[in-house]
Amino acid sequence: MTKVAFLGAGSFGTALSLLLVSKGLEVSIWDRDEEVINNINNYRRNYKYTKDIYISELITAYNNIKETVQGCNYIVLAVPSHAIRSLCSKIKDIIPKDAIIISIAKGIEDKTNKRLSQVISEELLNPVVILSGPSHAEEVLLNIPTTVVVTSTDMTYAEKVQDLFMSPNFRVYTNDDIIGIEIGGSVKNIIALAAGVCDGIGYGDNAKAALMTRGMVEIIRIGEKLGGRAETFSGLTGMGDLIVTCTSMHSRNRRAGILIGKGIKLEDAVKEIGMVVEGVKACKSFYELKEELNIEMPITHVLYEVLFQGKDPKAAVEELMSREKKSEVY
Amino acid sequence: MTKVAFLGAGSFGTALSLLLVSKGLEVSIWDRDEEVINNINNYRRNYKYTKDIYISELITAYNNIKETVQGCNYIVLAVPSHAIRSLCSKIKDIIPKDAIIISIAKGIEDKTNKRLSQVISEELLNPVVILSGPSHAEEVLLNIPTTVVVTSTDMTYAEKVQDLFMSPNFRVYTNDDIIGIEIGGSVKNIIALAAGVCDGIGYGDNAKAALMTRGMVEIIRIGEKLGGRAETFSGLTGMGDLIVTCTSMHSRNRRAGILIGKGIKLEDAVKEIGMVVEGVKACKSFYELKEELNIEMPITHVLYEVLFQGKDPKAAVEELMSREKKSEVY
Repeated sequence: MTKVAFLGAGSFGTALSLLLVSKGLEVSIWDRDEEVINNINNYRRNYKYTKDIYISELITAYNNIKETVQGCNYIVLAVPSHAIRSLCSKIKDIIPKDAIIISIAKGIEDKTNKRLSQVISEELLNPVVILSGPSHAEEVLLNIPTTVVVTSTDMTYAEKVQDLFMSPNFRVYTNDDIIGIEIGGSVKNIIALAAGVCDGIGYGDNAKAALMTRGMVEIIRIGEKLGGRAETFSGLTGMGDLIVTCTSMHSRNRRAGILIGKGIKLEDAVKEIGMVVEGVKACKSFYELKEELNIEMPITHVLYEVLFQGKDPKAAVEELMSREKKSEVY
Repeated sequence: MTKVAFLGAGSFGTALSLLLVSKGLEVSIWDRDEEVINNINNYRRNYKYTKDIYISELITAYNNIKETVQGCNYIVLAVPSHAIRSLCSKIKDIIPKDAIIISIAKGIEDKTNKRLSQVISEELLNPVVILSGPSHAEEVLLNIPTTVVVTSTDMTYAEKVQDLFMSPNFRVYTNDDIIGIEIGGSVKNIIALAAGVCDGIGYGDNAKAALMTRGMVEIIRIGEKLGGRAETFSGLTGMGDLIVTCTSMHSRNRRAGILIGKGIKLEDAVKEIGMVVEGVKACKSFYELKEELNIEMPITHVLYEVLFQGKDPKAAVEELMSREKKSEVY
């Protein structure tokens, strides 16, 4: 029987684990938080991340990674991007050699600015598949229709993961542009933060649509420069994910942006969200990358100034709006 | 002094007329509805379309088109797409020969399936400029930042219109892809209707983001086939306008879709909206075009079945979701 281990019991990981159990697979979950583990095993709830959702008895939660991954065919890394490398180095010697690693985080590594699939492959010899796309956990948990994309440097493995997750209300597409998918998923969080700032200031739908459109241009510019394909950015992991992140109240990045737009300091905004806000780190990484590669990314640029250099959010948005009148295509 | 006539006192036309008055231009408005004219002239309100917004005393409203257009440098056609041809034939002999015609409607002509700039040029010899983009009147009225695009077969005129409207909170870009802009503006209303249906059924942000993403594919497919450029569809008049129309409650197309998704009949939904729902006619036109040109547009196809052939909305969305598992790019 196919066995899948989830490392990290956050909301999206938990949602996916329930999806797989409903397909009849054997699922184990590890989390570093003992209370989360106890709540799952004893109360069949993951109060911290998925509130009152019932966690099937077919799922066993562990505090011990070794027990969790034993005999697994698939291992889902369900931790934030900054925790990926240390988690990989921790499991290196205890996971089955042929287990397929699935990463569901969206971001790039701090300082090295490497994509997560690169980070994972530096630490582990196993095949790596990236799952991405417009998929808020809150809706997957409720079995509301969702579509995602899987990618890998070897698409044979991506197709296995497609079959693993595919179900009537969770559609899985494949796309072999791993660079485009990982970059798109990271940069969209920056734009979502900026869109939140726009909302927090009190600007409307017209302005936000314009910001998202210009944000897509930034995603495409840096994405193509780093080796991704333009068509990927128009797909589910680019535009689709950007839309959902910029418009849904489920988005932590957008919610953090709203607080910042209202004048709340970055640290306090992140504290209030209470979970990792990937866009903050992504903004720093891509600010560095754009400077290094000399790419015009005005939204990323002013957001960096707002987040890390104390620039007034309203002045920043006005600056974006009042750039020289010009042709749309440039 | 530059003089601008608005033919039609709908919400967007009125919003633009107030914008121009605030820039010091002379503005006249015509509408066929006498009550609207009287309310503007006597009460400084356009209750029917812009509620309590104060209409500057510098604007004069007329019931007589000839008086309205006298000595005008610019004439804004601010009527729904289906009324453009008859309006043009009505003003043919009474407008200044060198007045620039500006069209702000989004749609294509019934039966002929011609773009509005083509329709106008068949009726009038004047230069024609199209203004489009993510711009709900409700926000322009409140001076909330908005960006739009102008286009023409002769960009000299588009640049004049850019200067005419450009102001700190209303940014006007130029783009010479007139086909792309007109087609993008028309097809996005179909997708917005479908997105509304999705919302009305009770589906979530994940599903809607997926629908919008696949909707962009349809816009690009038909748009390129008809002679537009792919990059235009990623811009303000394509993606930007699609986003705002699919996510904002200001969108009449989306609101009509929501009602239909809840099981309300098309005629009743349109009646409840109380204004023209461009997406309904566009769906018919583009259904015909896609059949004729043999282009795959599954969203337009199932929406047509829902609107005109009594298909159940929920079954339609499920059909879209459950298409064969495949690669994202096809």
